[in-house]
Amino acid sequence: MAETATARRSRLTPERAAELYTAVLDLLREVGYDALTMDAVAARTHSSKATLYRQWGGKAELVAHAMRHMKPGSIADVDTGSLRGDLAALVTREDDCAMEQNTALMRGLAMAVHNNPDLLRAFKELLIEPELEEFRRVLRRAVDRGEVREDNPAMEFVVHMLLGAFVTRTLIDELPPTQSFLLSYIDAVVLPALGVPTTT
Amino acid sequence: MAETATARRSRLTPERAAELYTAVLDLLREVGYDALTMDAVAARTHSSKATLYRQWGGKAELVAHAMRHMKPGSIADVDTGSLRGDLAALVTREDDCAMEQNTALMRGLAMAVHNNPDLLRAFKELLIEPELEEFRRVLRRAVDRGEVREDNPAMEFVVHMLLGAFVTRTLIDELPPTQSFLLSYIDAVVLPALGVPTTT
Repeated sequence: MAETATARRSRLTPERAAELYTAVLDLLREVGYDALTMDAVAARTHSSKATLYRQWGGKAELVAHAMRHMKPGSIADVDTGSLRGDLAALVTREDDCAMEQNTALMRGLAMAVHNNPDLLRAFKELLIEPELEEFRRVLRRAVDRGEVREDNPAMEFVVHMLLGAFVTRTLIDELPPTQSFLLSYIDAVVLPALGVPTTT
Repeated sequence: MAETATARRSRLTPERAAELYTAVLDLLREVGYDALTMDAVAARTHSSKATLYRQWGGKAELVAHAMRHMKPGSIADVDTGSLRGDLAALVTREDDCAMEQNTALMRGLAMAVHNNPDLLRAFKELLIEPELEEFRRVLRRAVDRGEVREDNPAMEFVVHMLLGAFVTRTLIDELPPTQSFLLSYIDAVVLPALGVPTTT
């Protein structure tokens, strides 16, 4: 019987996996995705390349898993009782300092994705899709509570609005997407577009 | 007396400049920014490298001018009488086919900007700032007409909303930002956030 990815990965303790992910992220910050080699990861973590390939399948998957590991807890457990609260919880999972570091890392990886279809695939599966799923859950709860009408045409554009805030803030404004910036944006753009009255 | 950039550039006829810009864009599509050389541009256009440097100063400026040249007419002259009309005119300057071609080109250049600060500078000066200025004019007219309140907090986020539509549509949805998509987005997100009633 073929081993599943989970079964393969379960051979490492969570502590050991965390150590490996931290080393991968350090190396990414030092040399970038294209120059990162499995040899360097193996050397830095005192593991064998065979182990790395067996556990993760390849560099792209290892990097995507490392990035996912870095994301502070899922908001799957968060249920604040309001759309505003849930969106705020979603965008303020990282504090401003972590956000600034991760923005630099994500920008570098966004460049690498352009020339590495396997990295794009791993990112979609391990990072983007789970994140989109969280948004769908948050919106579903808002509809169930009667906060947002199910047929509100802005419903399908929530990710467009929020990603626009991150990208424009970083690339055009050349400012960090701080928590206070993101909260202002939710109040000024996302909630009004969804027809949710803001308290201010 | 020092020559101004305009005086220097005026030595070329507009037709000759257009020919050069077309060749630069062709080369960009063929080899990308990093592999593009002034030698290749000179050879393709039967001009001397000295001429290219004298006219544009360098590769980054030449590429930014070529990209600006490609943009169909400014909307500075467009004044439709409504914010919806002006925004629609702004985002539908290119037809769907041109938009799809240019999106690929812009994505490649966005990657190059990451490693070429001079390209970022030239883009900001020649493409981004003039575009932001158009948006400010469009919004100013909407305020003057009484369509949007000057203190509406979404006023400062119009570019964030629209850039989010382009980026998310292209990278996450993996679909082209067609005119009909952009018009739906304006109606569903931008106008409601600005408190402008849509007719639908």
